[in-house]
Amino acid sequence: MNPSRLRHLLQAVKTGGLSVTEAECQLRDLPFEDIGVALVDHHRELRQGFPEVLFGEGKSAEQLISIMTAMAAKGGDILVTRVAGEKAAVLTQAFASGDYDPLGRTFVVRQQAPEPRWKGTVLVVCAGTSDLPVAREASVTARVFGNRVEELTDVGVAGLHRLFSRSGMLSQAAVIIVVAGMEGALPSVIGGLVPVPVIAVPTSVGYGAAFNGLAALLGMLNSCASGVTVVNIDNGFGAACAATRINRTGGETQ
Amino acid sequence: MNPSRLRHLLQAVKTGGLSVTEAECQLRDLPFEDIGVALVDHHRELRQGFPEVLFGEGKSAEQLISIMTAMAAKGGDILVTRVAGEKAAVLTQAFASGDYDPLGRTFVVRQQAPEPRWKGTVLVVCAGTSDLPVAREASVTARVFGNRVEELTDVGVAGLHRLFSRSGMLSQAAVIIVVAGMEGALPSVIGGLVPVPVIAVPTSVGYGAAFNGLAALLGMLNSCASGVTVVNIDNGFGAACAATRINRTGGETQ
Amino acid sequence: MNPSRLRHLLQAVKTGGLSVTEAECQLRDLPFEDIGVALVDHHRELRQGFPEVLFGEGKSAEQLISIMTAMAAKGGDILVTRVAGEKAAVLTQAFASGDYDPLGRTFVVRQQAPEPRWKGTVLVVCAGTSDLPVAREASVTARVFGNRVEELTDVGVAGLHRLFSRSGMLSQAAVIIVVAGMEGALPSVIGGLVPVPVIAVPTSVGYGAAFNGLAALLGMLNSCASGVTVVNIDNGFGAACAATRINRTGGETQ
Amino acid sequence: MNPSRLRHLLQAVKTGGLSVTEAECQLRDLPFEDIGVALVDHHRELRQGFPEVLFGEGKSAEQLISIMTAMAAKGGDILVTRVAGEKAAVLTQAFASGDYDPLGRTFVVRQQAPEPRWKGTVLVVCAGTSDLPVAREASVTARVFGNRVEELTDVGVAGLHRLFSRSGMLSQAAVIIVVAGMEGALPSVIGGLVPVPVIAVPTSVGYGAAFNGLAALLGMLNSCASGVTVVNIDNGFGAACAATRINRTGGETQ
Amino acid sequence: MNPSRLRHLLQAVKTGGLSVTEAECQLRDLPFEDIGVALVDHHRELRQGFPEVLFGEGKSAEQLISIMTAMAAKGGDILVTRVAGEKAAVLTQAFASGDYDPLGRTFVVRQQAPEPRWKGTVLVVCAGTSDLPVAREASVTARVFGNRVEELTDVGVAGLHRLFSRSGMLSQAAVIIVVAGMEGALPSVIGGLVPVPVIAVPTSVGYGAAFNGLAALLGMLNSCASGVTVVNIDNGFGAACAATRINRTGGETQ
Amino acid sequence: MNPSRLRHLLQAVKTGGLSVTEAECQLRDLPFEDIGVALVDHHRELRQGFPEVLFGEGKSAEQLISIMTAMAAKGGDILVTRVAGEKAAVLTQAFASGDYDPLGRTFVVRQQAPEPRWKGTVLVVCAGTSDLPVAREASVTARVFGNRVEELTDVGVAGLHRLFSRSGMLSQAAVIIVVAGMEGALPSVIGGLVPVPVIAVPTSVGYGAAFNGLAALLGMLNSCASGVTVVNIDNGFGAACAATRINRTGGETQ
Amino acid sequence: MNPSRLRHLLQAVKTGGLSVTEAECQLRDLPFEDIGVALVDHHRELRQGFPEVLFGEGKSAEQLISIMTAMAAKGGDILVTRVAGEKAAVLTQAFASGDYDPLGRTFVVRQQAPEPRWKGTVLVVCAGTSDLPVAREASVTARVFGNRVEELTDVGVAGLHRLFSRSGMLSQAAVIIVVAGMEGALPSVIGGLVPVPVIAVPTSVGYGAAFNGLAALLGMLNSCASGVTVVNIDNGFGAACAATRINRTGGETQ
Amino acid sequence: MNPSRLRHLLQAVKTGGLSVTEAECQLRDLPFEDIGVALVDHHRELRQGFPEVLFGEGKSAEQLISIMTAMAAKGGDILVTRVAGEKAAVLTQAFASGDYDPLGRTFVVRQQAPEPRWKGTVLVVCAGTSDLPVAREASVTARVFGNRVEELTDVGVAGLHRLFSRSGMLSQAAVIIVVAGMEGALPSVIGGLVPVPVIAVPTSVGYGAAFNGLAALLGMLNSCASGVTVVNIDNGFGAACAATRINRTGGETQ
Repeated sequence: MNPSRLRHLLQAVKTGGLSVTEAECQLRDLPFEDIGVALVDHHRELRQGFPEVLFGEGKSAEQLISIMTAMAAKGGDILVTRVAGEKAAVLTQAFASGDYDPLGRTFVVRQQAPEPRWKGTVLVVCAGTSDLPVAREASVTARVFGNRVEELTDVGVAGLHRLFSRSGMLSQAAVIIVVAGMEGALPSVIGGLVPVPVIAVPTSVGYGAAFNGLAALLGMLNSCASGVTVVNIDNGFGAACAATRINRTGGETQ
Repeated sequence: MNPSRLRHLLQAVKTGGLSVTEAECQLRDLPFEDIGVALVDHHRELRQGFPEVLFGEGKSAEQLISIMTAMAAKGGDILVTRVAGEKAAVLTQAFASGDYDPLGRTFVVRQQAPEPRWKGTVLVVCAGTSDLPVAREASVTARVFGNRVEELTDVGVAGLHRLFSRSGMLSQAAVIIVVAGMEGALPSVIGGLVPVPVIAVPTSVGYGAAFNGLAALLGMLNSCASGVTVVNIDNGFGAACAATRINRTGGETQ
Repeated sequence: MNPSRLRHLLQAVKTGGLSVTEAECQLRDLPFEDIGVALVDHHRELRQGFPEVLFGEGKSAEQLISIMTAMAAKGGDILVTRVAGEKAAVLTQAFASGDYDPLGRTFVVRQQAPEPRWKGTVLVVCAGTSDLPVAREASVTARVFGNRVEELTDVGVAGLHRLFSRSGMLSQAAVIIVVAGMEGALPSVIGGLVPVPVIAVPTSVGYGAAFNGLAALLGMLNSCASGVTVVNIDNGFGAACAATRINRTGGETQ
Repeated sequence: MNPSRLRHLLQAVKTGGLSVTEAECQLRDLPFEDIGVALVDHHRELRQGFPEVLFGEGKSAEQLISIMTAMAAKGGDILVTRVAGEKAAVLTQAFASGDYDPLGRTFVVRQQAPEPRWKGTVLVVCAGTSDLPVAREASVTARVFGNRVEELTDVGVAGLHRLFSRSGMLSQAAVIIVVAGMEGALPSVIGGLVPVPVIAVPTSVGYGAAFNGLAALLGMLNSCASGVTVVNIDNGFGAACAATRINRTGGETQ
Repeated sequence: MNPSRLRHLLQAVKTGGLSVTEAECQLRDLPFEDIGVALVDHHRELRQGFPEVLFGEGKSAEQLISIMTAMAAKGGDILVTRVAGEKAAVLTQAFASGDYDPLGRTFVVRQQAPEPRWKGTVLVVCAGTSDLPVAREASVTARVFGNRVEELTDVGVAGLHRLFSRSGMLSQAAVIIVVAGMEGALPSVIGGLVPVPVIAVPTSVGYGAAFNGLAALLGMLNSCASGVTVVNIDNGFGAACAATRINRTGGETQ
Repeated sequence: MNPSRLRHLLQAVKTGGLSVTEAECQLRDLPFEDIGVALVDHHRELRQGFPEVLFGEGKSAEQLISIMTAMAAKGGDILVTRVAGEKAAVLTQAFASGDYDPLGRTFVVRQQAPEPRWKGTVLVVCAGTSDLPVAREASVTARVFGNRVEELTDVGVAGLHRLFSRSGMLSQAAVIIVVAGMEGALPSVIGGLVPVPVIAVPTSVGYGAAFNGLAALLGMLNSCASGVTVVNIDNGFGAACAATRINRTGGETQ
Repeated sequence: MNPSRLRHLLQAVKTGGLSVTEAECQLRDLPFEDIGVALVDHHRELRQGFPEVLFGEGKSAEQLISIMTAMAAKGGDILVTRVAGEKAAVLTQAFASGDYDPLGRTFVVRQQAPEPRWKGTVLVVCAGTSDLPVAREASVTARVFGNRVEELTDVGVAGLHRLFSRSGMLSQAAVIIVVAGMEGALPSVIGGLVPVPVIAVPTSVGYGAAFNGLAALLGMLNSCASGVTVVNIDNGFGAACAATRINRTGGETQ
Repeated sequence: MNPSRLRHLLQAVKTGGLSVTEAECQLRDLPFEDIGVALVDHHRELRQGFPEVLFGEGKSAEQLISIMTAMAAKGGDILVTRVAGEKAAVLTQAFASGDYDPLGRTFVVRQQAPEPRWKGTVLVVCAGTSDLPVAREASVTARVFGNRVEELTDVGVAGLHRLFSRSGMLSQAAVIIVVAGMEGALPSVIGGLVPVPVIAVPTSVGYGAAFNGLAALLGMLNSCASGVTVVNIDNGFGAACAATRINRTGGETQ
């Protein structure tokens, strides 16, 4: 609702081209539409062909199914995160076409063709096997959000030759999500190797002074590789959202 | 050094097209060159026409000048961060063309034409006036790294109408850096309004239970707006590096 | 026991109007009565027609029933907080007229007409659906303490248009309780919009760096909206008590 | 801007009673005015005859004077908090009518008659002499915000007879601000004695395991007296704001 | 092994009254006996007629029984702390004379007459009913260690009249153990009322910002009543040990 | 004011032996006197011939002198703690008879004969030379509170032979104050050697992960020697108060 | 791949002694081999005759068996750590020759003669019986890594005579691992007695302010005995790895 | 004092070869000598030709000089750590032969030939230039303790090619001290490359969420390279002590 559009509307009222009632309708929602303009754009952009997302933890299978049924009716894809195995079994009965990933604990119902929307590739790198669930949540989420996704696993800093042998993957990615627990050092190493955006995800993997991911979180925030950014502990979903925001910058596939 | 290049080199040795000594030279550095390939690319990319960066805190004016003189000889731009006022006075005497920003505590010596290299605009948003030094460090850094930069200040969450009145700036940015202290809530609000990458910078502004930026840091890590990423407390420089990594994704200006 | 009352008593002893034994009785409890005067007033005020309150956690259904039976005999209302579902089932068998709220985990037995005592309205605002149990504990408690209560839910800061669309409710409340987890930013936004007392309740909703509500707690304590006050994490009950103390300031309904 | 007002405006445009340009002006700001309606109300309410407030820490005397001069021109009162002694000397030269409180570090310039606006009395209670600066900041602030203020000092929990001897003051207050460092126990004792709102202010007084006010803060958040609310460490200003929000509930003086 | 005893031994060797071998035996253990002299004294003193103590947590009923059987053979009393209900049932079958306290989770087997050994009385004061298990562990332990013990419960700081009504008990105790959770303020109040040693025991009672007893611990360490000492969170046993060390100072009963 | 005393008073009123006015006077203060009975006792007991105590930190030399002059007029001793060297110089000019201890930063003005009041000896043990200031504060305080005091220094756990060589001092003390920084292990060792009360004082000595005394504090709270109690970090004064409470249990010197 | 080896290879290519394909093979892996040279050495050294190590926590018995079966095929020993009792039962059925230690929760399958490889002895010292599981994990690991291992248990600092009576074991060890919970003071005492390397392992034994091993960890990091090093809480495995790194320095058995 | 020595002493008493008084003298100190046997050995071993060590922080130049003068009289070397520049100037005047290292803040007075005593080399690796002071403290200390020392600086994980280019130094060291601030990742990388003992030293380098070295400390404790051990933050001296303990295991130079 820029000034010129407002002027047109008012002139249409003056000239009778728009009734007072119609103008009232348009104007009544103006504040919210205006505030929401970016938001709505954003939503349209993020959600066009994308799944609705549901945080599965703390909701019963029954609650999930009733919400998902409503969502499904709109024709879009559905992503449920943090779904434990037993719940997934019930969801699978309700949504036979659903795809459950027991590692990442994600449940996806696709009702649209799953084609990458953005040009760039999101690379999800994982330090140790224990970090895999968080990495998988990130890669499943990124995929359903329209990104081409690759995975590179078990390349922790105590055996860097494994990472260096895959340097090609690193240099070809548009965005890199690095998932690591314990001391959380991998993002620093990768951030020092590549110029692309690096999103660090600390995991709660470890014990004792790992303090449920605090050690990894602090390590990543203090990365000596400039320009590494960080999301919450175990937040594979959030990292994928951030990667999508970034990947979108590079434009859509033709 | 992909397989075909290696084969060519060896065949050149076999056929005498390359002496053993020359081949030895090329191969001796191969491991590092190979490891470093992305890194070198990265450096070339980041540093082409960009300033060298120097962390000014804990170095004397004399130390800074001697390092800067060496840097200046290479012909590139120089950025020194965290330069207190007294040091800046000394630096200015040594580098008359240098530009000191007393708010952001940056000292920049430009030896190259300061034109934006990347297409997108980096918007630096600042919650309160006390957060300005960190915001300024971010915007100066982003500018010397080749980004078009805009600033939006004093739009804290306790008076959101100021933010909404500038929603145009928000929606036109390619990347948004949000600098906030105290409860650090602004990135959540902005992350909910726009689909572009949002980099949150907690500041040490506040007292008591602000715990030198911990409150803002935790708030930002727990943002309810998905896909907000976070850098270290007061790390305006790091946020600008991350923004540059992202802005680069959108391509160069023609 | 002001000076004049004391003098009357002593003169009654002197003149024989009061026996030494009677005077002794009156005076023996004097210290406590005097200390307790405000307290007793307070209790009388808070409890007149109000429920007795019982913290249900850590007590068995049998223990609760025996205490509640004693309470019920006094004719007042009874509020039990933190009652898990299984316990509630047992309580319901014992107190058929009891009202269990599975969301807020409250069990209320009313023996008095549930009419609002104070003029003002307590508005309970809730950031996300996961914060609802704490919000409901607050609203049930506030209601049984004689307040008119309204609820406004799911108006988190990542979608502020939902909050703004209900600005009428905000401006008509006498006291606002704001319940939020994660980064706990909602009280700052609301505190910036209205001049009435705002009580912030951090919840333990979130994971990782939410540290069981610490992030929200710190955020609220550092609110940039002046005059927001805070209660303990998940303490919906305490917020309702504080709201009642405040609402009482505005006077009783006629 | 309720529906009827909108309809009138549009009809005025239609009938020519309002030009398009004038209507455009009114409507262009509508979203913000609408969002801001409560805020503006709030500001009007809070600021009518009240001082503008300036946080003095981190600003030079010169900066303060230039902002204050601009403020003074509007004719309202001015409150500057956290003003160190040396700065105060400079301010006093610039504003001869200014009143500096060296204990509370407040500087007040009154340009309006300093009469209480709200009916109720705000009582500021202080545990120890070291807590006095924070208590004084609260009482000065509360007074310039239109409250009748009383002070009760040095009534720490290790000598409760001093508190009990002043129980009259406690029971006559409309709101009580309780300022305490070290273990922060005083709000619990007072909250158990009176039914009025109690705002607890932890101070950074203490050493060692006081952890700069953390001990007092945690103690107050866990108060066993229901309905005590808490503000940030050393935040006497915030407590006075909260007290004003509450005291306003009881209505204005005639 | 004081100087005179050493001289006698050596002279006995010289005069042949003691063989070299016998002297060697006595001297070989001398270092440990000497180091241990206080310790052994101490043990003798503490254990004369006192129970052996066993920490029950993390040991199976079978393990406990086998250790207790060995202990019982020595004829002394036995105290087992932290015994869950199911284990206690098994222990009771093995030691029919054993006395299980389900509240304090202690299991005591007395084989000696349970008479107080020390003159003074240990008073165990408890802030709230939830603190009772820790208080009971303290009082059972103190009793089996030879102390006369009294209990005073539910005298939290939010209702101090209950405490003041029992001031006699306070002033007659030789040592006072004060058990409190939440804000842990009770020891400050009691420490301000009496001149006797006050041992504060923080409990893990509370939720949210109680941080499992941290709030109470910090509060007690920062008590404004001088000379209050503190033991570990929930450490009723340790408080009783400290009380015994102190009560012993006052001498034995005749 | 026990029942019989009350009865006597009332009967004296009845019989005219006491005028109403006199009785009123006695009874008017009764509540506070009654509450305060233990307190007053306590104060009388603690203060008879003892110094008044003043916390010197944060008070100017002028403020101290004016308070001390008032105190001195009452004829008792005066103890000022935490007095920096420059302030001490000024105090010495004002109180020529004052005794400044530069190590413990205490300033004592004695107006009474400095004889021990209690029978037992307080032993102050100190782990390292850096802990001496806190130890000295404890020993000076204990001495002015009427205790016989001995000191044992530099007996840290990394060279235990120094401690064992003084085991006699340990076993003859009535109370032992153990002052230690860094890992704070000394109280455990001493608590294992002697049966007397052991008061542990953590100091802020150390760096890095000593976290200003937190490491020592936690170590002492978790002492494996049962019955060790702890006071705040660097609180030598508090330890001496606790020692006096305990030493008093053993009775006065004849 | 030192310069001379590289030169030989290239000359062999030139002279035809090595085909291009063969040279390519050797060179293609060169970067990794070169980077890995130390690593591979290290692995060879550590693994020659040593078990493969598997972290058992978070893996099902089935997963463990399938990995172990693959490992066993290589002929080496296998060590699985953190194996709960039920899993061990399943493993034992699959690997009849396996040796389960229920205390240390280790499962070892030996396929090689279990002879010590290094000359020195690793002594594992344990403060209390509750620390035994961690100590046992350390000693089992050290043994399967080729170390001669001795154990010394239950020598906590509250009864040091037990430690001193075994001073011979201390002085004969090449490396000492000290396992302790609670205040973690034992490493300081032992570090003060012996000149050999001391590795401190904090355990999560304790409750309350032990904060799951934090107290012991901080205590050990602040040890007043110079040169004590520390590993993560409960990390008996890591301590054994460190001890092996050190013991290797002393050379192999003949 | 082994059994045979004791037997000889007693027989000398018996045969009159030793007077009772002489024997008494020898035996009176026996316990301490015996306890101290390892310690004394240790000291002899560590101090033979080694400097006495003095912690310079918190001591005046005058105090240092008086202690050093006494030390110097014994003829050994002297090491003073943490000596600020101004103090060093004074020390240099007193000890003209002293060697001050302004980077490591060490002051060394050598009175013995500075030859390496142990065979192995201690390599001190340093992540960034800001970590140099701590690294230098470690290398100076290690050198004066008789170790051959090499330094490798500025090889942080964000540019690993610099580290790999020096892999030779890594593989030839007997012990490696790794000094790093910020995220503290370097020890993990080095621990993964070499089989020798790795001692990690976190530094307080960094800002914000580095929390004065906490981030680096936690990172190192959670290193994914097994067998890395850690010392206190900034404790270069302690790391050198630990390295000496280890290097000693490899034997002396011939």
